[in-house]
Amino acid sequence: MDPLDVVSDLHKIKPVYQPIVSAIRHSVAGYETFGRIQNGEEWLSLGDFFHNRDVPEEFKVEVDQHLLHIVMTEMLETNTEGYVFINRNAKQLMVNNGEDLLESLLMFEQKGFAMNRIVIEVTEHDFDEEFEELIHLLLYYKTFGIQIAVDDVGAKSSNIDRIRQLEPHILKVDTGIIRHNDSDGFHDIIYSLSLLAHRIGAALLFENIEDNFQLQFAWKHGGHFYQGFYLARPVFELKDAHHISVNVSEKITDYILREKALVEDRRNHVLHWEQKVKSLLPQWGGVKKVDAFIDTLTAQFNTESFRMFVCNSYGEQVSANFRKREGNWETEPDKKGSNWAFRPYFLENTMEMRTSSRGILSENYSDIETREMIRTFSFPLSEQYFLFVDICYSFIYENESLLI
Amino acid sequence: MDPLDVVSDLHKIKPVYQPIVSAIRHSVAGYETFGRIQNGEEWLSLGDFFHNRDVPEEFKVEVDQHLLHIVMTEMLETNTEGYVFINRNAKQLMVNNGEDLLESLLMFEQKGFAMNRIVIEVTEHDFDEEFEELIHLLLYYKTFGIQIAVDDVGAKSSNIDRIRQLEPHILKVDTGIIRHNDSDGFHDIIYSLSLLAHRIGAALLFENIEDNFQLQFAWKHGGHFYQGFYLARPVFELKDAHHISVNVSEKITDYILREKALVEDRRNHVLHWEQKVKSLLPQWGGVKKVDAFIDTLTAQFNTESFRMFVCNSYGEQVSANFRKREGNWETEPDKKGSNWAFRPYFLENTMEMRTSSRGILSENYSDIETREMIRTFSFPLSEQYFLFVDICYSFIYENESLLI
Repeated sequence: MDPLDVVSDLHKIKPVYQPIVSAIRHSVAGYETFGRIQNGEEWLSLGDFFHNRDVPEEFKVEVDQHLLHIVMTEMLETNTEGYVFINRNAKQLMVNNGEDLLESLLMFEQKGFAMNRIVIEVTEHDFDEEFEELIHLLLYYKTFGIQIAVDDVGAKSSNIDRIRQLEPHILKVDTGIIRHNDSDGFHDIIYSLSLLAHRIGAALLFENIEDNFQLQFAWKHGGHFYQGFYLARPVFELKDAHHISVNVSEKITDYILREKALVEDRRNHVLHWEQKVKSLLPQWGGVKKVDAFIDTLTAQFNTESFRMFVCNSYGEQVSANFRKREGNWETEPDKKGSNWAFRPYFLENTMEMRTSSRGILSENYSDIETREMIRTFSFPLSEQYFLFVDICYSFIYENESLLI
Repeated sequence: MDPLDVVSDLHKIKPVYQPIVSAIRHSVAGYETFGRIQNGEEWLSLGDFFHNRDVPEEFKVEVDQHLLHIVMTEMLETNTEGYVFINRNAKQLMVNNGEDLLESLLMFEQKGFAMNRIVIEVTEHDFDEEFEELIHLLLYYKTFGIQIAVDDVGAKSSNIDRIRQLEPHILKVDTGIIRHNDSDGFHDIIYSLSLLAHRIGAALLFENIEDNFQLQFAWKHGGHFYQGFYLARPVFELKDAHHISVNVSEKITDYILREKALVEDRRNHVLHWEQKVKSLLPQWGGVKKVDAFIDTLTAQFNTESFRMFVCNSYGEQVSANFRKREGNWETEPDKKGSNWAFRPYFLENTMEMRTSSRGILSENYSDIETREMIRTFSFPLSEQYFLFVDICYSFIYENESLLI
């Protein structure tokens, strides 16, 4: 469609609303709005128009302003509550220093539309050019209470320092990526992003949710908001935009029950491992006989583990490494004297184990030596000495509860 | 200095070695090598030559190959063990498909220099151009056992998905950044990076360490390797490159003692809060009287907290929010019915609390509502109900042990 036709036919352009669902309330929290244009019988997306680099930004601003006025008016007239998500690209925002948008929003604020209900979505890609100007404009918008969402996080470029600088309210993650090949890598990225989001106080919004699996993924990774055809498609009428296709509470109850069962199962592994060590604890003969003690343990952990060692409460390894290679346990005496206190949570965990007299299972992480995903089970042998049992990937892989 | 003079005066060029210290062994683990050129009495850095975009890449390759041969020969002749870190930019690596470097390394491998002692440093910035080709070349190098380090991580562009794709062995972080203004942001980035590194099995190397504070920062953030003038300057002779200026073991013992004291102090806060709740537990009258129960607790946590609520084991909030505003505790009854099970560790922690009958203190994170850094203290009121006490930033800020 000719961009000129689009701009000259503003009366043929209407917004659609796609519900965004809250993980906290399990109901519609707001709407992302898109533009549609009438072409005979059909309503076409304006995506091509907005993504076309040859279309002057001023045209895009004009169409977007037109859509914004309809959206805000309809929301006010129907007393519809919740957030309004609007998309703006960097160049478009820069036109007239972003004043057009701000003026419209201020006008609607006077009519009762609170600024903090507006969420401006920018894409990370936009930050490649004119980063400084864009970030200043967005930080300026934020001072009015306007919320900022960064779209497509976790895709091509996940610049954590840019995200940190902007401190957006919402990070939007495209759930579609988990259908692709390298979803292992995506898991690692989402893991890092969700921790960064938690740390900086940003909410995660998972979009393009098209099935139950993706909804569960979004729930499991701490998503505050869900969006996608599985939940609701974009509709013209706000009165139709309260309907969610699936019973979100029911779904989430399922996930919770499933997760609780997995956590319980994982706890049973830990209890089982604790029992194994406890049953041999009478043979603990102090640090001088530490290697002999580990030697007796290897048979107990032959299936689960590939490496064991003992450290004192200062992180110093006081035993050799016991290392399983091709089915046999070998000792690596030169590892004695290593210090592991710098590892995340090391001191915290040893002090916790000393108090509780119970074992701790680490999260999944990649071993620097083998580069395989492992976990470490640790257990207090005494006030001063702590056993570390590295659980091998094959055992983790065969036990779903250890994968979470 | 004229680039042509550099290339034609190869006999005036010599490598220097800067020790890299292991956090595990507290001794020299390897050396980063740089080029120096003799100019009369002085030895000048070749940094300008290598960073000059106008110098043909072929020139750089020639100088680097010359340096590499000296380094490898000297290492072999002096029986020096450990890693050799060499810097290569993307364009330089692409010359002749990176075969020159590989051939040299294969030749030295035959003389007894194991491939896995070589660490090629590339900068993240390099990935902006020709990302696909570069990543393929580096993945190809990795198949020979060569290690890859990504330099300057956490600086201008921290692309976690690119890092994830490359799966480097080492991430180098410039410690100098903590001297700058926005070091809060840097902390968040290092936090995310260290978790990503742990997850993908990459070791963190903190470089440009110039004082004790930076060394402690590196230790505290899980650095496997340390580098910088505080530890050792670059030297011409390998025999001089074993010397570390500070007693690393002594320094790290200091950090460990300090950290243990902080963890202990933090534990005392938790024990104190547990006592406060326990002393009022006889007044717990079940879920029907939950708001009245929290009301009695507000006085106990008036200094520490700004928000309290109770959830059941399915994550459902069964009380109002108790929210302190301008010194007064108000209730927000509409928050009842919220579900928090999607939050990281929620289900895990409630199940842990039920078993241990003890409280749990979360890590520091930013509250989505206030955007301030907070922690949450949670405690099991019964098998089914759990108290959540959000600790306010001012209290955290005044208690160092809560900041870690």
